[in-house]
Amino acid sequence: MAGYTPAIGRLVGILLYARRTTLAAVDGMSVAELDHLQDPSSNSIGALLAHIAVVERSYQILTFEERRLTSEEQAALEPALTLGDEGRRLLKGKPLEHYVRDLDDARRLTLEGLAARDDEWLERSLTAAPAMNAHFAWFHTAEDEINHRGQIRWLRKRLVTPLSHSES
Amino acid sequence: MAGYTPAIGRLVGILLYARRTTLAAVDGMSVAELDHLQDPSSNSIGALLAHIAVVERSYQILTFEERRLTSEEQAALEPALTLGDEGRRLLKGKPLEHYVRDLDDARRLTLEGLAARDDEWLERSLTAAPAMNAHFAWFHTAEDEINHRGQIRWLRKRLVTPLSHSES
Repeated sequence: MAGYTPAIGRLVGILLYARRTTLAAVDGMSVAELDHLQDPSSNSIGALLAHIAVVERSYQILTFEERRLTSEEQAALEPALTLGDEGRRLLKGKPLEHYVRDLDDARRLTLEGLAARDDEWLERSLTAAPAMNAHFAWFHTAEDEINHRGQIRWLRKRLVTPLSHSES
Repeated sequence: MAGYTPAIGRLVGILLYARRTTLAAVDGMSVAELDHLQDPSSNSIGALLAHIAVVERSYQILTFEERRLTSEEQAALEPALTLGDEGRRLLKGKPLEHYVRDLDDARRLTLEGLAARDDEWLERSLTAAPAMNAHFAWFHTAEDEINHRGQIRWLRKRLVTPLSHSES
């Protein structure tokens, strides 16, 4: 992956692949579809997209700024980070473009941050979370996205207008 | 990761991490829970575990044996590979240990195969699938598992006996 040190480049490949499959899974969805709740304890697909974006933001702060979220940041990101009741109350009524813009904005900062760092940085213990290094943090970001993409595919298949190409 | 060349070692780390989280997600499940269908088009959690094991088998054949599945292998793996109606008909009535044994057996062969190969092999185009290299094949194996683990977590939360520690 040009522009990155080798191990960071592999991670970037994983992050970009995960994102491409997420965006493919939600392509063309309407506001009503993005807001749909499969059952009372479900998260909407829109809320899952918001979650993916704020997880990425929180790992930027943890790894690039080497700090925990401030209480203001925590409060702002909380509904999408934790999902559940607050997410169901607040994360709705937005078109796909809204979520995609948040995802794109987050991703741009991630790629800039990773391009400016190297593989030695990647393996160092994080100041703000010493049990973790940036490699795990960024792998986990992709892994959490893939986990939720699995849920998005499952949920979308149950909408009236399913994906035209079915993927398991 | 000791015993592997560097890039293979990173992949092995991802594979082991994915598996650990899958096994945590199904810990303690009964046959009835493993067989439960959330709705008529759902795959049971047991069927998803069977799927994860046969996906791993099929990528062993593709990358280590450098060939496509024979028609006999294809027929044998098909219900768990494709899931859907045949999976719902055939993949049931088994205790968790059955699925875990299949997963462990598949994983042992994967780790042996990867330990016997190197990073140069990892990047070579696959004879039986020239658009792909082994790196992508094994990343995709982990990625597909994580995708389905997301579904397993979602499905398990909706059983009468949910996971004691909730994970999104």
